[in-house]
Amino acid sequence: MLKLYYSPGACALASHIALEEAGADHELAKIDLKAGEQRTPEYLAINPAGATPALQTDEGVLTENAVIMAYVAQAHPRAGLAPDPSSFAFSKMQSLNGWLGSSLHPALGRLMFSRPPLEGEAKDAALEMALGKLDVLENHLFVGPWATGGAYTVADGYVSVFTRWSRQAGLLDAARYPNLNRHLDAVQARPAVQRALAAEGIPTV
Amino acid sequence: MLKLYYSPGACALASHIALEEAGADHELAKIDLKAGEQRTPEYLAINPAGATPALQTDEGVLTENAVIMAYVAQAHPRAGLAPDPSSFAFSKMQSLNGWLGSSLHPALGRLMFSRPPLEGEAKDAALEMALGKLDVLENHLFVGPWATGGAYTVADGYVSVFTRWSRQAGLLDAARYPNLNRHLDAVQARPAVQRALAAEGIPTV
Repeated sequence: MLKLYYSPGACALASHIALEEAGADHELAKIDLKAGEQRTPEYLAINPAGATPALQTDEGVLTENAVIMAYVAQAHPRAGLAPDPSSFAFSKMQSLNGWLGSSLHPALGRLMFSRPPLEGEAKDAALEMALGKLDVLENHLFVGPWATGGAYTVADGYVSVFTRWSRQAGLLDAARYPNLNRHLDAVQARPAVQRALAAEGIPTV
Repeated sequence: MLKLYYSPGACALASHIALEEAGADHELAKIDLKAGEQRTPEYLAINPAGATPALQTDEGVLTENAVIMAYVAQAHPRAGLAPDPSSFAFSKMQSLNGWLGSSLHPALGRLMFSRPPLEGEAKDAALEMALGKLDVLENHLFVGPWATGGAYTVADGYVSVFTRWSRQAGLLDAARYPNLNRHLDAVQARPAVQRALAAEGIPTV
């Protein structure tokens, strides 16, 4: 049985969506990041890096959305959530997932989740950085109609985590980000995504 | 022919080391990040995200060290640079590589490369964050003697990029980080790594 450690609405939602899209038998374990539950001894025994997501499998624990999503996709090939792992298309998808995790996520996180909150010039700089990353996604990395082209993949769920945050923060301007707005609506309309949102107790945005 | 876009000593060194370890036929294209060459129209046509590394292949461009290193390892299986891609061990290695890219790299980058440089409390907070990430690597994620256990993998070159920066910045205290210091010395002693350092014109540290 797969067990996903997640925090509601945080980036583990990407792995959660992949599990739902795959029809994977799984259970959920809630880690409240705001309450600091990622730093308890019990959770650090699961993931010493003190971050979500973590996926407990029969073989051990995996971390990082790009890795968990690829694992889930490969374990459920009939769901068609990723290209064949030996293909160049798979590597291209992982390039996008890597960028989301290493570039867009830190930029949005710095703007939205710095404690204490950013102010003044530091906040302005973080906002410019975050919008610039969203520009790159909107105008270059996003292929359309889905993130990597004609087929839905695990990358779509991952993109939607960040466009969801961005819309909630009032950053996802309709004129500046038409592709990303249309995409977020399409992702949220999927039954598997609705199940993941409901299980985390968070709204469609 | 593979073509790696890199900036001397920057994180693309991880992909560069993988190419040398694999014995892969490749050429190098230098992008001077300090001079802003990652934002020229020519380079943005290669990688719209304006970052290094990027690997030009016959099938297209790949980005993100974890993706490029996996691609190189899989294309040169006899070099033994990664577990079988269908194995759980491969996913574990990628979990580490993902953490390096999404967590350690941003933390060190914020401390070392913020422009203008951080000062006062912001610098203190960034230093504490960076050292905390190095603690997690030293005490938990690093398996030993190599990063993921008994065999050298592409993850070792990637770890060495960040321990190299850390040693250069005076952060890699011998008593606090014995595993990481010993590991960096072992990585730098490898002939393939020496070739990569020489090709980038950067020293052993």
